Amino acid sequence: MPAEGTYLERLGARTAAAGTVLCLGIDPDPEALPAGFSRDVDGIERFARLLVEVAAPYAAAVKINLAFFEAYGSAGIAALERVRAAIPAGIPVIADAKRGYIGTTVARQAGALFDALGADAVTVSPYLGEAAIAPLLERGDRLAYVLCRTSNAGAGELQDLLVDGEPLWAHVARVAADWGPGGTVGLVVGATAPRELALVRDISPGLAFLVPGVGAQGGDVEPVLRSGPAILSPAGGRPGGGLLVNVSRGIAGAANEPERPPSDAPEGAAQPPARELERRLVEAAESWAARLPVLP
Amino acid sequence: MPAEGTYLERLGARTAAAGTVLCLGIDPDPEALPAGFSRDVDGIERFARLLVEVAAPYAAAVKINLAFFEAYGSAGIAALERVRAAIPAGIPVIADAKRGYIGTTVARQAGALFDALGADAVTVSPYLGEAAIAPLLERGDRLAYVLCRTSNAGAGELQDLLVDGEPLWAHVARVAADWGPGGTVGLVVGATAPRELALVRDISPGLAFLVPGVGAQGGDVEPVLRSGPAILSPAGGRPGGGLLVNVSRGIAGAANEPERPPSDAPEGAAQPPARELERRLVEAAESWAARLPVLP
Repeated sequence: MPAEGTYLERLGARTAAAGTVLCLGIDPDPEALPAGFSRDVDGIERFARLLVEVAAPYAAAVKINLAFFEAYGSAGIAALERVRAAIPAGIPVIADAKRGYIGTTVARQAGALFDALGADAVTVSPYLGEAAIAPLLERGDRLAYVLCRTSNAGAGELQDLLVDGEPLWAHVARVAADWGPGGTVGLVVGATAPRELALVRDISPGLAFLVPGVGAQGGDVEPVLRSGPAILSPAGGRPGGGLLVNVSRGIAGAANEPERPPSDAPEGAAQPPARELERRLVEAAESWAARLPVLP
Repeated sequence: MPAEGTYLERLGARTAAAGTVLCLGIDPDPEALPAGFSRDVDGIERFARLLVEVAAPYAAAVKINLAFFEAYGSAGIAALERVRAAIPAGIPVIADAKRGYIGTTVARQAGALFDALGADAVTVSPYLGEAAIAPLLERGDRLAYVLCRTSNAGAGELQDLLVDGEPLWAHVARVAADWGPGGTVGLVVGATAPRELALVRDISPGLAFLVPGVGAQGGDVEPVLRSGPAILSPAGGRPGGGLLVNVSRGIAGAANEPERPPSDAPEGAAQPPARELERRLVEAAESWAARLPVLP
């Protein structure tokens, strides 16, 4: 089913409403769940739904890392479908699937991610070329973020290789701008490589950026806010300039902060753990939203 | 749960027993199902299980293209799990997942593909570097086929770019040989690029090749049989030299051949459609197995 308007229009509207370029990342690591959550598919679903409930209202978009759900097979995908259904209408949802091949005979997988799961955007790998992912680039109401310069350790092993005198990531940024019918392609550029991020912005002044790597991975916010927003069409000129800055552990990890003495509680009245957990997640989401404002 | 021996040992044993380097590809396209199969997840599961039942006995391995099952969400993954469970023990199973990112925090996804799904090997994308897929390269009893020079249309868009005077696929072949602890890495090299396949073999004389693209995609068998087998350790010196040649539509498509007159049937006795379908699939599998012998 087509969504209303383009992805960039919906993202711009939500960014303006939320007043932030924060993207809430849902990467529920079973080993990092707070006390009271079982280290299995039920535990990651419960925690993911709690994150959506309390933190998504502060975010411009939600990105779900499919790998954490795929890890549990069909039960994990069923949990993923319920988590997605819990995200309020109006908040764009990115399926972080890093798909590299769709192909004409699997065109319906685009339907699976976009329609059955209801993702507004997906992440895709460029290694097999535009033709391999064409079905994900064709829909005017959706968008595909192409992996360009990623934030993971060792990302440069292939991405930094020189191709005709420029790194491979620069080449990807250049060619991806011409992929699809226009307005359906963005780029994944990590905050851990701020110099590269600024160069990618020069190469692709009009593409929306999805920027992982701030917070737990060590990337700074300031250069991302400076170079992240697009300055030309299709993403430029909208609230936030199409920029999304993903924060996953920076918010979810607040659930695991050491217990603080409940100094403002009446003596003897222990803070209910569930309420305290929610309070911490809200505080972290609010704080990140404020650190990632929509610049004029 | 660890499997017995290494993947290359198990593949070598099965290759010797089957007498072929044929890999049966399970890519159940709902639009290409034979009459009598519904164009939905039940139809693709039924057809995939029929293929496994009648054609897998003629193959050295089975490769399942996860995209066709992922297209149906959790119901599709549940079907995938049942199809995998129907593959007889002793036949190595490759999960064609083309994953590009696992990462340390998602190390358990390796467990999901290798243990929960029970795949003996997986396909992975190299774009994010070795570190991103490390958990899939670490297990001595499994293997990851790294996408090197793929067979899809437009594969050369990135893969043919020149890096230090050599194409990117050649660079990938060179570095992937040093990935993992040894004996856990293979390469995907398409039959549609026979010149490149021979060059990749020169660069990586010891790696196992998974070769798609013969049959429906137009690749020739002869150059693959000549350059495909490894000549050095770890894959060399075993039956088949670690080579697997994937055939998907070449076998499954036999189900859709135009009805032939049942000239050898007693007059008036129509061939039962189910039996006729099985006969065609068996004939196609036997024929491809014979065209893909284990060369001494």
